[in-house]
Amino acid sequence: MIIMKKDATQAEIEGVVAEASKYGVHCDVSRGEVLTIIGLVGDEHKVPFSHLEVMPGVKEVRMIETPYKLISREYNEAFQGKDESRIIKLKGVEIGGAEPVYIAGPCAIESRTQLMRIAEEVKRAGAHVLRGGIFKPRSSVHSFQGLGAKGADEAREALSWLREAGERFEMPVVTEARGESQVNLIAEYVDIIQIGARNMYDQDLLGYVGRAGKPVLFKRNFGASIEEFLSFSEYIAAEGNRDIILCERGVLPIGKGKNLTRYTLDLAAVPVIKRETYLPVIVDPSHATGRRDLIRTMSAAAVAAGAGGLAIEVHYNPAESWVDAQQAITPAELKDIIDDCRQIHKIVKG
Amino acid sequence: MIIMKKDATQAEIEGVVAEASKYGVHCDVSRGEVLTIIGLVGDEHKVPFSHLEVMPGVKEVRMIETPYKLISREYNEAFQGKDESRIIKLKGVEIGGAEPVYIAGPCAIESRTQLMRIAEEVKRAGAHVLRGGIFKPRSSVHSFQGLGAKGADEAREALSWLREAGERFEMPVVTEARGESQVNLIAEYVDIIQIGARNMYDQDLLGYVGRAGKPVLFKRNFGASIEEFLSFSEYIAAEGNRDIILCERGVLPIGKGKNLTRYTLDLAAVPVIKRETYLPVIVDPSHATGRRDLIRTMSAAAVAAGAGGLAIEVHYNPAESWVDAQQAITPAELKDIIDDCRQIHKIVKG
Amino acid sequence: MIIMKKDATQAEIEGVVAEASKYGVHCDVSRGEVLTIIGLVGDEHKVPFSHLEVMPGVKEVRMIETPYKLISREYNEAFQGKDESRIIKLKGVEIGGAEPVYIAGPCAIESRTQLMRIAEEVKRAGAHVLRGGIFKPRSSVHSFQGLGAKGADEAREALSWLREAGERFEMPVVTEARGESQVNLIAEYVDIIQIGARNMYDQDLLGYVGRAGKPVLFKRNFGASIEEFLSFSEYIAAEGNRDIILCERGVLPIGKGKNLTRYTLDLAAVPVIKRETYLPVIVDPSHATGRRDLIRTMSAAAVAAGAGGLAIEVHYNPAESWVDAQQAITPAELKDIIDDCRQIHKIVKG
Amino acid sequence: MIIMKKDATQAEIEGVVAEASKYGVHCDVSRGEVLTIIGLVGDEHKVPFSHLEVMPGVKEVRMIETPYKLISREYNEAFQGKDESRIIKLKGVEIGGAEPVYIAGPCAIESRTQLMRIAEEVKRAGAHVLRGGIFKPRSSVHSFQGLGAKGADEAREALSWLREAGERFEMPVVTEARGESQVNLIAEYVDIIQIGARNMYDQDLLGYVGRAGKPVLFKRNFGASIEEFLSFSEYIAAEGNRDIILCERGVLPIGKGKNLTRYTLDLAAVPVIKRETYLPVIVDPSHATGRRDLIRTMSAAAVAAGAGGLAIEVHYNPAESWVDAQQAITPAELKDIIDDCRQIHKIVKG
Repeated sequence: MIIMKKDATQAEIEGVVAEASKYGVHCDVSRGEVLTIIGLVGDEHKVPFSHLEVMPGVKEVRMIETPYKLISREYNEAFQGKDESRIIKLKGVEIGGAEPVYIAGPCAIESRTQLMRIAEEVKRAGAHVLRGGIFKPRSSVHSFQGLGAKGADEAREALSWLREAGERFEMPVVTEARGESQVNLIAEYVDIIQIGARNMYDQDLLGYVGRAGKPVLFKRNFGASIEEFLSFSEYIAAEGNRDIILCERGVLPIGKGKNLTRYTLDLAAVPVIKRETYLPVIVDPSHATGRRDLIRTMSAAAVAAGAGGLAIEVHYNPAESWVDAQQAITPAELKDIIDDCRQIHKIVKG
Repeated sequence: MIIMKKDATQAEIEGVVAEASKYGVHCDVSRGEVLTIIGLVGDEHKVPFSHLEVMPGVKEVRMIETPYKLISREYNEAFQGKDESRIIKLKGVEIGGAEPVYIAGPCAIESRTQLMRIAEEVKRAGAHVLRGGIFKPRSSVHSFQGLGAKGADEAREALSWLREAGERFEMPVVTEARGESQVNLIAEYVDIIQIGARNMYDQDLLGYVGRAGKPVLFKRNFGASIEEFLSFSEYIAAEGNRDIILCERGVLPIGKGKNLTRYTLDLAAVPVIKRETYLPVIVDPSHATGRRDLIRTMSAAAVAAGAGGLAIEVHYNPAESWVDAQQAITPAELKDIIDDCRQIHKIVKG
Repeated sequence: MIIMKKDATQAEIEGVVAEASKYGVHCDVSRGEVLTIIGLVGDEHKVPFSHLEVMPGVKEVRMIETPYKLISREYNEAFQGKDESRIIKLKGVEIGGAEPVYIAGPCAIESRTQLMRIAEEVKRAGAHVLRGGIFKPRSSVHSFQGLGAKGADEAREALSWLREAGERFEMPVVTEARGESQVNLIAEYVDIIQIGARNMYDQDLLGYVGRAGKPVLFKRNFGASIEEFLSFSEYIAAEGNRDIILCERGVLPIGKGKNLTRYTLDLAAVPVIKRETYLPVIVDPSHATGRRDLIRTMSAAAVAAGAGGLAIEVHYNPAESWVDAQQAITPAELKDIIDDCRQIHKIVKG
Repeated sequence: MIIMKKDATQAEIEGVVAEASKYGVHCDVSRGEVLTIIGLVGDEHKVPFSHLEVMPGVKEVRMIETPYKLISREYNEAFQGKDESRIIKLKGVEIGGAEPVYIAGPCAIESRTQLMRIAEEVKRAGAHVLRGGIFKPRSSVHSFQGLGAKGADEAREALSWLREAGERFEMPVVTEARGESQVNLIAEYVDIIQIGARNMYDQDLLGYVGRAGKPVLFKRNFGASIEEFLSFSEYIAAEGNRDIILCERGVLPIGKGKNLTRYTLDLAAVPVIKRETYLPVIVDPSHATGRRDLIRTMSAAAVAAGAGGLAIEVHYNPAESWVDAQQAITPAELKDIIDDCRQIHKIVKG
């Protein structure tokens, strides 16, 4: 990271960028109110820092150890001179703002009728954002992979239903991109692109989604430490996209015998990530627990832990759901959850 | 498990017990309002169930797969004909009752003065139970092991301070037994005996503590599934002691790199264990996170998850604490936490 | 899975395939010596099995629970009437054959000179296959990502060096594809395409690589059970590609404190996978341990465990290596390892 | 750690010990050929090192960060001036010597007849040490806990059979102590006391066993890092007992779904621990895999990894075994394993 002097000229800044770029790194120029910082992204291996240090306009060269400097609150504070959290505004919804945001919808989109009915009911229950899976990550190639897997036409059709539902019920919409070739297609139809837990380490996909021009809902892998989660978020940020919503959805359970939940929800990750980064953090209690009877309780706990939102799977008839039927709740249950969470949020926001 | 007929006589019950005992098992006779159940504890390998099944008074012999039948809510409901949670009453405090219980005090007792001051301050902040470590489990033999490790006299002295503080400030007191030979000594002085996470699998110690005639605060091992935790609780219950307070205190963190908390607090364990057993469940946010700045948030989340209490390390000057200084909070912070938690509990208790 | 009668005609087989295909599944027809099996790949959710069961030529419809039936030894044995392991033949090298195969080369290709020198030296030491990273998966976006990350021209240039080295020193070559868009490019130049541990769950990428017409070296994710590893291998197999080399490279280490190795090498996975599938299994001691001083010992252990090969990072001057310098060995050390392993293989092959 | 001058007198050494002891620490005096070292064990918190540093005869005071200095090879080398591994000699058997040692016998002793027959057969197959469980650690209180759980008389009887079998077939014998009160009893009858994986963290028990005057076979807990394993070994060493045999027996498996082995055998722990400490390291493939069909392969791998011995469960009729029947092998299989291992050891000992 190269810190420019307060009165560094534009020419001096460009000079440093030009010089550093010769060594194959990408320069992320961040003009704060107080200072201008040039973050180097890529292989810093051969960059001659001692040479850069003496160029005109350079105040200092600082090696930042953290692998997630672009999204780091500390980096932002130190050089922008202010402590601000990122608020992502979409069609009147503020993610990362004063109130938690509720993202709800079916695990998988099954038909236009199913989606419209669920959209209407979650909207009425208080949801802000509509979710619905079209490309489903699955453990077995022999399981249902989502309507998107049926072919390009079916994928476009399902995406258009999602856009239509979002417009009709006035909610931004989100769906998951599981592979590079889906990113641009999805970006045409939705407001937020989701990257699932299984693709967290997929750095090429993160590059694509970072360049797609849409906010990204980014889920922690079940085997990843918080540090790794943030390091891979940095792959999105390095493309110039800071509209990243981080989502905790449970890590691998420990021990022999049964844990009685699908994953272990790491709620302490919420306050930890909020201290480390300026990005909004939400929680997905549906995939974390895999149990309908725990969603209300763990939603309350997530908001008490400071979550800026929840992503919940909802179906008017959970037992009929094609995928993950055991974890979906009804719209009526969603309403109760949102009621609880609003009250709890008032207490903990301080 | 042998289920006796509704009208089975005392003689018939004794007959079955006598017969089963011949095969080296211990009989746990549980006389419910509806039925009498004889649970067999120990090696069921050679018990001739087909023979027992036809003895007078026997209704049926049922093989229970669960390794934790004695503490199981289902077992209790099925045979006692009622769904009741265990309430442990100690000097006016109800653990497992209507309100969460706050257990607070120093990680390690350092001196009489230190303990009295902390006791007074946590009482004033709203704590119900006083904790203080005398025998400390430590990763390194070269670290401070608690005053109890200095010798028998020092151990008794520290225990007497703890009893004195409990009497003076009207709180039941709890300390940890780390080995068999400490159990009876500790039982002379305290109201509750704690078994720490590292001793969870220590079935001989569990037998001793089960027979010591005091309620047990039993912590989950950081590498144990919920099923294992409950299976080892059963070792205490099998001694006839059902006054067991189960404590979630975090499991091993996942992934490469830093997790930024000491352990991963598994808050979903709280509602899960409350459904599985009739025992009270509390949470220890201090050891789970190892970070003072997370205690308030994770305490709120724990109570939102339904915790029946919290165990928190408190010191009037945390930085001076001999052990785990980075996780202790002040009495003033404890008061704020209790205030938050009371409000959250009102919302979630429904 | 639909099992056809012994004397089922081609027309009957095609009839079943046509019928099943109507429901959106792909049919994998496997004509064994004894029976013909039609495996259904994809969403079996709406396939009317009771209807298929009574079609002409159908012997029975069997639901296979295992999520990895296509690569399963049991499936192969039951229906092909023989127990055979897969041998992948490439330019005179047999992977999965009588002798373990040694894959060696630099972690990352740094220059033509570096690659040629290493290729020559590993060949002389006894290696059969040449490896070299061009697209490197890295934890931090701020680290060196391989020559392939510099641009399309640099990627092609590095790939052409790899092909050239393979031709000159008569070894098949392998490099890693980290994203969909690299697959076809890489397939033009190499003999084997590697999918790294971090991309194991990336089912779209697995589909691409399955269709690329080259054998795949597929590495287990560090957070994946053996069952998951095999389930995701099935995504490659479902594209009709059975030339899959499975590679164990270590799982996440357990516990607080240091484990003193980078990952925990799961050598029991070798005999387990060899019993479950008919595919060759190799071991990567370099990434698993991350320690040069353990490579010889763990290579010996891997071959004793039945590994069909080893993938080892070699550099003529390990300390100079741009990536993972602490785990590379010298060509001289490779020779000693191969000598040990040949002797051990003689003992354990029985 | 206080390092005394080469020519420090006995009086000077005693002076330092007396001074340091005032602060509640125990002094471990180790007189090497080159130097005398006084290791401080216990709470170093209040020891005034600056004062000790200037006492007569003191060369320097060095803070050792490692929590396992007493068993550390580095500590031993630095101050004893030589690099030696610990060899434990028992009735003609050398553990930690030139050849791997084979420990075999039943999981649980069931009867005198069973034990004698197995002892005879394992001796004939080449075993050096006889094992047999009397106090069994079990996950469920409702399972068979070993003959020792039946009462004091039964425990003594089973122990006397074990001693008798050891004498008759000329093998040292080992059994597990699960609790403090068993340690001295067991020490009367056996040559080696085993501490099982579940008791690894039980520091009071480790103190007892360290003082019992017998070599200790110490097993790694399934949730413990290598560093923790060595740190808790230090609890035994701190009692003056350096006859510690470290045993790797598998750690918790990773991932969702099945791993198809009971635990994950961490064979890299073998060379790592051999570099860190001077103690012998053995492997228990029986508990690690839980699968009879993997014992031969994983035994070969363990010896290839440098294991100084193996602990294997053997039964003349494995299916009849009361405990862990699925992992026991026959004496004939043991013989084949020992044959393989002898040949492999010749290759890897270099």
